[in-house]
Amino acid sequence: MFKKPQIVHGECLDGKNDLITSITTLPQIQNRLIEVEKLMSAQADGYDPALKAAFDVLLATGGKRIRPTIILLIGAMLDAENTATTILAASIELLHTATLVHDDLIDGAFLRRGVPTLNSQWSPAATVLTGDFMFSCAAHLVAQTNSNEIVRIFSKTLITIVDGEINQLFSSKCNLTRKDYYQRIYAKTASLFETSATTAAILGGLKAGQKESLRQFGYNLGMAFQIVDDVLDYVGSEESIGKPVGGDLRQGLITAPILFYLENHPDDPDFVGYPEGKCPKDEAKIARIIAKIAKSESIRLSLDEANRFSDAAKENIASFPASPEKDALLDIADFIVNRKL
Amino acid sequence: MFKKPQIVHGECLDGKNDLITSITTLPQIQNRLIEVEKLMSAQADGYDPALKAAFDVLLATGGKRIRPTIILLIGAMLDAENTATTILAASIELLHTATLVHDDLIDGAFLRRGVPTLNSQWSPAATVLTGDFMFSCAAHLVAQTNSNEIVRIFSKTLITIVDGEINQLFSSKCNLTRKDYYQRIYAKTASLFETSATTAAILGGLKAGQKESLRQFGYNLGMAFQIVDDVLDYVGSEESIGKPVGGDLRQGLITAPILFYLENHPDDPDFVGYPEGKCPKDEAKIARIIAKIAKSESIRLSLDEANRFSDAAKENIASFPASPEKDALLDIADFIVNRKL
Repeated sequence: MFKKPQIVHGECLDGKNDLITSITTLPQIQNRLIEVEKLMSAQADGYDPALKAAFDVLLATGGKRIRPTIILLIGAMLDAENTATTILAASIELLHTATLVHDDLIDGAFLRRGVPTLNSQWSPAATVLTGDFMFSCAAHLVAQTNSNEIVRIFSKTLITIVDGEINQLFSSKCNLTRKDYYQRIYAKTASLFETSATTAAILGGLKAGQKESLRQFGYNLGMAFQIVDDVLDYVGSEESIGKPVGGDLRQGLITAPILFYLENHPDDPDFVGYPEGKCPKDEAKIARIIAKIAKSESIRLSLDEANRFSDAAKENIASFPASPEKDALLDIADFIVNRKL
Repeated sequence: MFKKPQIVHGECLDGKNDLITSITTLPQIQNRLIEVEKLMSAQADGYDPALKAAFDVLLATGGKRIRPTIILLIGAMLDAENTATTILAASIELLHTATLVHDDLIDGAFLRRGVPTLNSQWSPAATVLTGDFMFSCAAHLVAQTNSNEIVRIFSKTLITIVDGEINQLFSSKCNLTRKDYYQRIYAKTASLFETSATTAAILGGLKAGQKESLRQFGYNLGMAFQIVDDVLDYVGSEESIGKPVGGDLRQGLITAPILFYLENHPDDPDFVGYPEGKCPKDEAKIARIIAKIAKSESIRLSLDEANRFSDAAKENIASFPASPEKDALLDIADFIVNRKL
C-alpha cells in the first residue's frame, strides 16, 4: 500500500512508484494488460499504414492504463469472463485516447506525456479523422461485449465527456465555483472512471446495491485523479508531467489550486480580470503566479479534497470480500493521490 | 413512379420532383419523419444553447432525409415496432449529419445545400466538438434499439465511413480505377444506405435470405445515389446542388464522370498530371473542363451505371409482397436516378 501524501508547501508530490510498478504486484493483471494493448492496436490492422502508425504511436505513449487496470481488477475480483473484460478495457481506453486526440487538437497542445501530439505533426484533418477512427473502434469493441446496458452507459458517457468539452470551450473556461469545477472534472475524467467501474461490475453480474457501490468507487477515484492532475499542473516538473507546467493557468482554466487560492486571496492583483481575456502572457508573471500558488495553502487544500475522494472510494469497496484484486484496487486509490505522474 | 432519366449531352438532369414530394404520397411516413426530426433535435435539449442552436440549424438544412425514409418504409413494410424504427432512423441520420460536419471542416467547405457550413462560421474546435456530440447522440440512440446486432453493424459502418475518409485524405484522392472509385463511394455513401436497410430489416424480424436482399437493396441504392451526386457535381446548377459546380474537380477528386471521360480521352492535355498536384486553379480552365465533361458521353455512361444499380435495387425487393411501402421504396430507387437535388 502507498502512504498518504505528506505535502509541504512548495514541495513536489512525494509519489514513490508509478502505477505500472504497483500493478505488477498482480502478474495475472499485468499479462491481461498486454492482451488489452494488443487488442487496441489490432483495431487498426489492415487499414491505412499511416493510420496504423499513428495508432501505434498514440498507444505506445499511452499513459498509465489506469482505466483498463480498474476494469480488469474489478472483473477478476467478480470472476467475470476474461474475454469480455479484455474487450471492455480496450474499448474504454480507446475511447479515452480518442478524446485526448481531439482535445489536444482543440487546445493546440504540442506535448502530451513528453511526446509530440498528433496535431503537432499532422494536419487538423488527419487528426480529426484519426480521433474519429478511434471513437469508431471503441464503439465497435463495446458492441462486442453483447450487453445493451454497457453500450447505453458507454454512449451516455461519451455525450457527457463531449458536453463537458463544449462547456469548457463556450463558457470561456470561467469555472468560478467549486460546483462548476466539480461538474467539469466529472465530465472530463470521473465520468469515464465511473463508467469503467460500473461496466466491469455489470460484466461481473452485479446488480443494484453492489453495482452502485462500484459506480461510486469509480466516481470518487476519478474525482481524486483529476484534482491531483490539476495540482501537478502547478507543482509537478515539466519532465514528470510531460508538458509545460502551468498549462491550465495559461489557458485561463480555473482548477482546484487557483479556486482555493482565490477563495483565500480574492484581492490578489495578479488575478484581477482573470480568466476573462486576461490570461497572463509574459513568462515572468506566469512563473511568479505558479510559485505563489505552489507555495500557498491551496495545494494542501486541493490534496485534502483529493484525499477525501480517495478515502470515499476505498470506503465504497470496503464491504467486498478480501482478495488480491480488492487490495490492488485499494492500492490504486492510494496511488492516485501519491503519484508524481 | 418516376421516369428513367433521358439525358441529352450537356443538359441538366430531368428530375421533376424532390424526394419530399414523392414521400408525401404516404402520409403515415410523412408523419413519422416529423417524429424522427423531433427526436433528433431533442438530443441537444438541455445542453449548451450554442450547441442546441447549431444542432437545429444543421437539422433544419438537413437535406432529403432519404436514409430515415428508407428505414421507416422498410420498418412499416415489415410491421416492425414504430418506436424502434423511429429511434433507428434518428440515429442513422444523426450519424450521417455528424460525418458531414467533420467532412465539411476537413474539406474547408463553405456551403452545403446552399447554406453556410458550421466550419465557415465557427472555430474548428467548436466544429469538431459539435460533430463529436452528434456522433455520441447517434451512438446513444442506436443503443436504445436494444439490438446488439444493430449496434455492431452501426459501429462497423462508422469505421467504414471514417476509413474511407482517411483513404481519401492520405491517398491524394487518386482514385484512378473503377474499383477504387466504387470502394470509395461504398465507404462514403452506400455503406450507410446498406446499414439503413439491413438494420430496418433486423427490426422487422427478417433473417438470412430476406435480410440479405434488403442489405443488397440498400447497397445498390447507395451506389446509384452517389454516382448521381457525382454527376450533378458537373451538370447541376449551383442553385440546385447547393454548392459550387465542379467541387470534385477543384479538389482533384476523381469521380464517375472524369473516370469515364479519361477512359475514353486518355490524352486530353487538360488532364495531364491530374490530380497529382495539378488541380486546375484558374476559373477559365475549370469552366472549360466542366463544359467538356458535361458535353461528353461520360455523363450518359455514368448515369447508365447509376441506373444499373437502381435496377438491381428494385430487383432486390421484387419478391416482397405488394404493399404501398414497397411501391414507395421502388419510387425511391427511381427518384434517386432522376433527381435534380
